[in-house]
Amino acid sequence: MSTQTMDSQFRFLIEVEKLKVVYRQCSVIDKSRQENSAEHSWHIMLMAIVLQEYANEKIDLLKVIKMLMVHDLVEIDTDDVFVYDTTKRDMMFEKEKAAAQRIFGFLPKEQEKEFMRLWLEFETEDTPESKFAKALDRIQPMLLNYYTDGGAWKKHGITKQQVIDRNKHIEDGASELWQKAKGLIESALEKGYLK
Amino acid sequence: MSTQTMDSQFRFLIEVEKLKVVYRQCSVIDKSRQENSAEHSWHIMLMAIVLQEYANEKIDLLKVIKMLMVHDLVEIDTDDVFVYDTTKRDMMFEKEKAAAQRIFGFLPKEQEKEFMRLWLEFETEDTPESKFAKALDRIQPMLLNYYTDGGAWKKHGITKQQVIDRNKHIEDGASELWQKAKGLIESALEKGYLK
Repeated sequence: MSTQTMDSQFRFLIEVEKLKVVYRQCSVIDKSRQENSAEHSWHIMLMAIVLQEYANEKIDLLKVIKMLMVHDLVEIDTDDVFVYDTTKRDMMFEKEKAAAQRIFGFLPKEQEKEFMRLWLEFETEDTPESKFAKALDRIQPMLLNYYTDGGAWKKHGITKQQVIDRNKHIEDGASELWQKAKGLIESALEKGYLK
Repeated sequence: MSTQTMDSQFRFLIEVEKLKVVYRQCSVIDKSRQENSAEHSWHIMLMAIVLQEYANEKIDLLKVIKMLMVHDLVEIDTDDVFVYDTTKRDMMFEKEKAAAQRIFGFLPKEQEKEFMRLWLEFETEDTPESKFAKALDRIQPMLLNYYTDGGAWKKHGITKQQVIDRNKHIEDGASELWQKAKGLIESALEKGYLK
């Protein structure tokens, strides 16, 4: 392996370290600060390992984990966009694609291509892996909002119907997890976390 | 799948979320705050994906990732121990084992057993996967210390020889990465980051 290849891989690993300082809407459960995107990625990868049995279709777990790892890296350039900010979200795809090209461009050619394929599959395709990965990516912030007494939901006055609309595709990847999520939503409404 | 099983898995996922507020000696590269163990785990899992070709032996990448995911979870109970604090580190095994039993005990039986096996393999065995995982776990804080102008090395007056002694087993898992690490150590000495 050439020194040049390894050097470019290390430059990539230093560049993406910035994901640790991209902050999200949710706070961590002890409420001491906002969650960042690196630890969010960690949490959903752990969920993939623990909850794999609930995928609707047979999945390649390693591919799911890689996809969850890759899909948030673009936020280094674009920042996290609140999932309920639908206007902003619709304009994001081209920006995120440019970010993916810049950031994955640090890597050797073959790895760059693999990361781009994984990113595109997550963003644009309905495969068993992307559907399950998206389900996990949606249910994790619901947990955080629920266990911080409403958190970002309450702060932004989010309604039960908004949460259902933005998260119901969990069912496409993991219908049992959608049942769990619906229970959480009902309980959140009762507790006054949702309007 | 019983509701009880899923409930116990979610309790586990909420319990381990506390890893986000276990802080380490290194700071993140922009120096705005200390790194936490959840984002450290994220970073080494990403390193496993990007640097897999440098493992000395053929590895099962998914197993390496799971091992890296599992091995830090015990810090929820024990806190992170600075790698150069050798007195404290030697007393850690029993404490960490008790933590592993408590924390993995949230999971359904089969998953509890798998997590315990992975944790024990990382801590006590020399398999291709554990050797490579340990190499990544050691090289990551070196990167952070180097790119924060000496960071925790400088703060604690760490010497070049201490860094070599505590990290030379990187060579057992990934000899090319140890070459890279040695270059970093030499450069750190020249820059005055190490004594």
